[in-house]
Amino acid sequence: MALTEVSSNKSFGGFQKVFEHTSMQLGCKMKFGIYLPPKAEQQKCPILYWLSGLTCTEQNFVTKAGAQKLASEFGIIVVAPDTSPRGCAVPGEDENWDLGTGAGFYVDATQEPWSKHYRMYSYITAESVSAFAPICNPVQCPWGHKAFQNYLGADQDAWKLYDATCLVLSYEGPPLDILVDQGSADSFLTAGQLLPENFTNACSKKQLPVVLRMQEGYDHSYFFIASFIEDHIKHHAKFLLA
Amino acid sequence: MALTEVSSNKSFGGFQKVFEHTSMQLGCKMKFGIYLPPKAEQQKCPILYWLSGLTCTEQNFVTKAGAQKLASEFGIIVVAPDTSPRGCAVPGEDENWDLGTGAGFYVDATQEPWSKHYRMYSYITAESVSAFAPICNPVQCPWGHKAFQNYLGADQDAWKLYDATCLVLSYEGPPLDILVDQGSADSFLTAGQLLPENFTNACSKKQLPVVLRMQEGYDHSYFFIASFIEDHIKHHAKFLLA
Repeated sequence: MALTEVSSNKSFGGFQKVFEHTSMQLGCKMKFGIYLPPKAEQQKCPILYWLSGLTCTEQNFVTKAGAQKLASEFGIIVVAPDTSPRGCAVPGEDENWDLGTGAGFYVDATQEPWSKHYRMYSYITAESVSAFAPICNPVQCPWGHKAFQNYLGADQDAWKLYDATCLVLSYEGPPLDILVDQGSADSFLTAGQLLPENFTNACSKKQLPVVLRMQEGYDHSYFFIASFIEDHIKHHAKFLLA
Repeated sequence: MALTEVSSNKSFGGFQKVFEHTSMQLGCKMKFGIYLPPKAEQQKCPILYWLSGLTCTEQNFVTKAGAQKLASEFGIIVVAPDTSPRGCAVPGEDENWDLGTGAGFYVDATQEPWSKHYRMYSYITAESVSAFAPICNPVQCPWGHKAFQNYLGADQDAWKLYDATCLVLSYEGPPLDILVDQGSADSFLTAGQLLPENFTNACSKKQLPVVLRMQEGYDHSYFFIASFIEDHIKHHAKFLLA
């Protein structure tokens, strides 16, 4: 994979870089952000993948989350991919903010016209688990119905492969330790798009430890994420550096 | 002054808000960011004014500097005004990134066509002193010549009223304690636009304490600012909370 460096800025003793590369999975050029802590110059460091949400590019997390200070202290590399293919001229991809460009939903689409380029599941690989205000149960919410119907077709069994709540119910892998922060003033929570209680109920059934922290008064913005990023970096550091 | 709240996001226990108001000085609507720490709900808190540089709006500092965490801890209100009038249809204001929109230079312009709206000096009030990669001696650099020639006219004596190095040389006020951080890899430094050594030399002549920290490898971006914002907030807190 040939990488082209788009930008490099010194940040908390390390470097925040953005690279561009041609993705075979997506059939287009993609950018991703990577923070290299100072420790990475001397030794191997673990990698944390940050998967942004609807409407984001690789820039949102890089510029707004304030994660570099903590990644520098803990010696963790943070990779922030983009959220969808870009510039593939897929019909209709720029007509909705919650479908198409900026809204890949991390699925491998099976339906036309999406299936050639919208293969974000294969593009990204996620390790260890925590989340900010996630869409916990997309098969039960309007965003999920819209995205999955278009990307995956009418068969709802195929949708469950990309639904955290459904996946937990059939999970047989190694133990997990899951942290979820959710703002109580998040308009998407009250609109029934996120459904964190469905996720924690599923975890309880499977006796998987999950901590859902309902943060009073916080919304869905990067101000919320920046306020609690320290706890999440520490959560991952506990496992990554163990 | 009637204020309209544009946005409000809970952040580190307080609120990051943006307000819009009609400025009499500038003759247009202006936005500014204000961070209210949790302590501000119970008691009066000191205010720190952040003046952004060329091309910025009120959003750059609000979203990229990571100052809210520290302002929350120290109980300091941070006000971030915009850097120029907006939408006043001044001829030529959008033709250059270093003159006009986004580049008010915090002067009260005396020359046409700028003098009616470009009155940023009167619009803002700055208290206590520290700086990131400032244009230290604008009467000696290309940016300053371009801005002052247009805003203030040919008489260079008028320029000196807005030049930190010239002001220090005639300073007779109370003692100051000045902190300046400057990235050594800042392309504007090597281009002779910033001239921090002229400023520190002037301070030496007047026996004013100044600390200029040359930060190896850092550039002119908000990644540089975010890396050292903690030291600057602490510098101001020392005086504001004394």
